Amino acid sequence: MALIYDGAIQDVIDSFAKLPGIGPKGAQRIAFYLLSTRKEDVRHLADSIIHLQEKVKFCEICGNVTEKSPCEICSDPRRDRSTICVVEHPSDIMSMDRTGEYRGLYHVLGGAINPMKNITPADLRIKSLLKRLEDGSVKEVILALNPDVEGEATTTYLARLLTPVGVKVTRLASGLPVGADLEYADQITLGRALAGRSTITG
Amino acid sequence: MALIYDGAIQDVIDSFAKLPGIGPKGAQRIAFYLLSTRKEDVRHLADSIIHLQEKVKFCEICGNVTEKSPCEICSDPRRDRSTICVVEHPSDIMSMDRTGEYRGLYHVLGGAINPMKNITPADLRIKSLLKRLEDGSVKEVILALNPDVEGEATTTYLARLLTPVGVKVTRLASGLPVGADLEYADQITLGRALAGRSTITG
Repeated sequence: MALIYDGAIQDVIDSFAKLPGIGPKGAQRIAFYLLSTRKEDVRHLADSIIHLQEKVKFCEICGNVTEKSPCEICSDPRRDRSTICVVEHPSDIMSMDRTGEYRGLYHVLGGAINPMKNITPADLRIKSLLKRLEDGSVKEVILALNPDVEGEATTTYLARLLTPVGVKVTRLASGLPVGADLEYADQITLGRALAGRSTITG
Repeated sequence: MALIYDGAIQDVIDSFAKLPGIGPKGAQRIAFYLLSTRKEDVRHLADSIIHLQEKVKFCEICGNVTEKSPCEICSDPRRDRSTICVVEHPSDIMSMDRTGEYRGLYHVLGGAINPMKNITPADLRIKSLLKRLEDGSVKEVILALNPDVEGEATTTYLARLLTPVGVKVTRLASGLPVGADLEYADQITLGRALAGRSTITG
């Protein structure tokens, strides 16, 4: 006997259960939370969802999400214009920028090469990346893709493509995450940390 | 350096991060998911949220959430009208009904007695429960409150209040959950399971 809720409640539960990271139980909890929330707050949530696709577009230069194109990073004169950091998704820009260690520009690929999902190099924003390298002002391209199979394949592909252009191509270091325990590190990570070891001077 | 997203994206992230069970990372993931979702689906999510408070009200009899009052359960002639199951929240009705073992009516208290949160018996829907017992058609009240401190206190309070009315007052059994491991059961649960043991006939 799968009794479901009356229309409007079930509708909210179904809608929320479709979102990533929310299951049917979580969606039900949210629906009842919304029922007991101030009308203005609920309205604000709905409005923010509607405005999202209306206002947000993609930067014509780097592919970042933005409300005006070019985006704030691409139009920021204090940014180092000789370095481009290539990432898979717009959210990766936030992660990189949060480190405070990088002040260059970005380029969003829109994913990584993935034969299983039929994503080929032609589906990624590679042409626009090559265009940005044409005038020779960019000296280094940092490949900051995810350290998984797809990211590795894309990194290798891009390195082969970009090196002949005459730009320095680098990638993020692989190794132990800060705060990790050597005992629990997987073999591949530990192997890479060993291969990428650096000299310390006492 | 806490760079945040452009207005509309950050707005969605902030709105979702306020919902129960969603943190800032989950909210960010949802925001980017919504950006890449079909416009109709996003619109539908927003509409379902707006309609929720407009359409959903509380049943005048039992306090359940419903689009028409009395609710479907209260107005269902096939329901056993001699039993009322008392629960804390409307979502508990769904849980009870899903068992398929109960075909009576419900009564939502709207919470449990909680001195820490200043919830006294006067804040609960107890008066309307007593009113439902007045005509003598209800023979049994099942107290199905959460087996925590507040639920126990409320159960005791209600049992004292309802017994003199001349109605049979029962409560849900405490014991081992089905599929549990005796080794990992807590002392109190195991103690209650022992106290509530039943005779088996071979």
